[in-house]
Amino acid sequence: MTTALQMTATQVNDFIAASIPAFKDIGCRVEDADGLQVRVRQPYSESQLRPGGSISGPTMMALADTAMYALILSRLGPVALAVTQNLNINFLRKPRNADLLADARFLRLGKRAAVIEVLILVDGEDEPVAHVTGTYAIPEHAIPAITPSGATVA
Amino acid sequence: MTTALQMTATQVNDFIAASIPAFKDIGCRVEDADGLQVRVRQPYSESQLRPGGSISGPTMMALADTAMYALILSRLGPVALAVTQNLNINFLRKPRNADLLADARFLRLGKRAAVIEVLILVDGEDEPVAHVTGTYAIPEHAIPAITPSGATVA
Amino acid sequence: MTTALQMTATQVNDFIAASIPAFKDIGCRVEDADGLQVRVRQPYSESQLRPGGSISGPTMMALADTAMYALILSRLGPVALAVTQNLNINFLRKPRNADLLADARFLRLGKRAAVIEVLILVDGEDEPVAHVTGTYAIPEHAIPAITPSGATVA
Amino acid sequence: MTTALQMTATQVNDFIAASIPAFKDIGCRVEDADGLQVRVRQPYSESQLRPGGSISGPTMMALADTAMYALILSRLGPVALAVTQNLNINFLRKPRNADLLADARFLRLGKRAAVIEVLILVDGEDEPVAHVTGTYAIPEHAIPAITPSGATVA
Repeated sequence: MTTALQMTATQVNDFIAASIPAFKDIGCRVEDADGLQVRVRQPYSESQLRPGGSISGPTMMALADTAMYALILSRLGPVALAVTQNLNINFLRKPRNADLLADARFLRLGKRAAVIEVLILVDGEDEPVAHVTGTYAIPEHAIPAITPSGATVA
Repeated sequence: MTTALQMTATQVNDFIAASIPAFKDIGCRVEDADGLQVRVRQPYSESQLRPGGSISGPTMMALADTAMYALILSRLGPVALAVTQNLNINFLRKPRNADLLADARFLRLGKRAAVIEVLILVDGEDEPVAHVTGTYAIPEHAIPAITPSGATVA
Repeated sequence: MTTALQMTATQVNDFIAASIPAFKDIGCRVEDADGLQVRVRQPYSESQLRPGGSISGPTMMALADTAMYALILSRLGPVALAVTQNLNINFLRKPRNADLLADARFLRLGKRAAVIEVLILVDGEDEPVAHVTGTYAIPEHAIPAITPSGATVA
Repeated sequence: MTTALQMTATQVNDFIAASIPAFKDIGCRVEDADGLQVRVRQPYSESQLRPGGSISGPTMMALADTAMYALILSRLGPVALAVTQNLNINFLRKPRNADLLADARFLRLGKRAAVIEVLILVDGEDEPVAHVTGTYAIPEHAIPAITPSGATVA
């Protein structure tokens, strides 16, 4: 699906770093992006801990939101001004204190709205620590809409 | 993971058919169940249509709820009286008028709560028409808790 | 807010009854509708029971979906073909076996999407048995958008 | 409902400030708490802005999570170690750049789980900018369970 990719991982990374200072400050990095899936890494920091000593829920929610935004940019390019409409997160288990990875992919990308799934993982482990679904409103100008497998839809 | 399976697909099917008359009336059937994943088939019927002629949202929500219940039964056996706490569904695309399949799996099964993911598909198609996550409260008696990969957790 | 009301409760009721046979079959009725809020009543029936003898989750999900649809019709009129995008339900307590009421109101009604809240109550009781939020996609033609208090927004 | 209150607003505020450094750093403050409802204020800061110049989604999600935690503390006291299981947020409108208020209340407080609703508002405005529901797991020791109106339940 060569037409899916609008920005590379490096381009998405630089775009977010330039527009969201906190992204760079906390050392987040877009590691992979191909227009259909992205991976964002968030380095471990003690400032992310909640009472009790494990990584906080808001840390994971912010990472998931960033990964969804990176996926949208990767697919639609820098001109797209998409906004989150809804986010639903299930916390599955207490994460080990280590880097977090957020893997985002489209469940649907229509002309007016996208539905995205994000798995939050601890680097080096297989079981996700949180599962997220979110919907994005897509600005009203012509963009190619795709299914999760990359097929263009009406 | 031999200890995971508490009821076979046939046993789960018969148990639900005996306890939820509508399940049998509409021809639903548990096709696969192994304690970690289940598949439930719902035959197409014109009575499921919403205005506009496509399969209704409540039809898909009911099917997802049934699949979650079947998964719980498959894993915990017939004595478990689990109840849904939360269900979140994203409708992804208009389903073709055909049999629906619901594939459910554990995102987490703890001692007191389970988180389950369900994909609703149209028979013969790859892209899901709806994505569901739900949480179940587990009755308070000892059960083996597992991770999605089948490992037992504390 | 005289411009809010596009269909009366009776008109919404008749429209749904004509387009969703099951609505009439199970005796549902739109009792109130003013373009900003609606109330839908669902008579108690033993066919709604889940194993254990209380009203099933799918029964409440279907009622909530109907109430959201009734609210959209009440505000936008019969030409609107809105579709549910997302529904999130929290089950709060086991309902007594009696008529259920669904009270729906707009959290937001924009030009392209509506966010609706529904409380499911047992007739005669104050505490809701379920809380629902849902989003609807609005068809692309000019409609007046309102805030929950009835003010028109851009 | 005199028995509902376990910690005052000041006590909850001091407890969170002591255990979550960021809470104090960004100037958050628990303004009201009575065991059934709480209000948390988050002062406006440019560091909260997303690309485009409005307050970011993660800022609102973190505030909602804090308000839920404050409500739990207010009701259960400082010994309670509750954890978020699920959070669902609908973004309703772009907030004006000003202080945010989060008003949280119980939809249900059972022995093992709480369901909480949070409205995020801009100080001085009536319409919420975001609506949140969340579930909390309650640690396993005896606590008085209440309904939203303050009645004790089994």
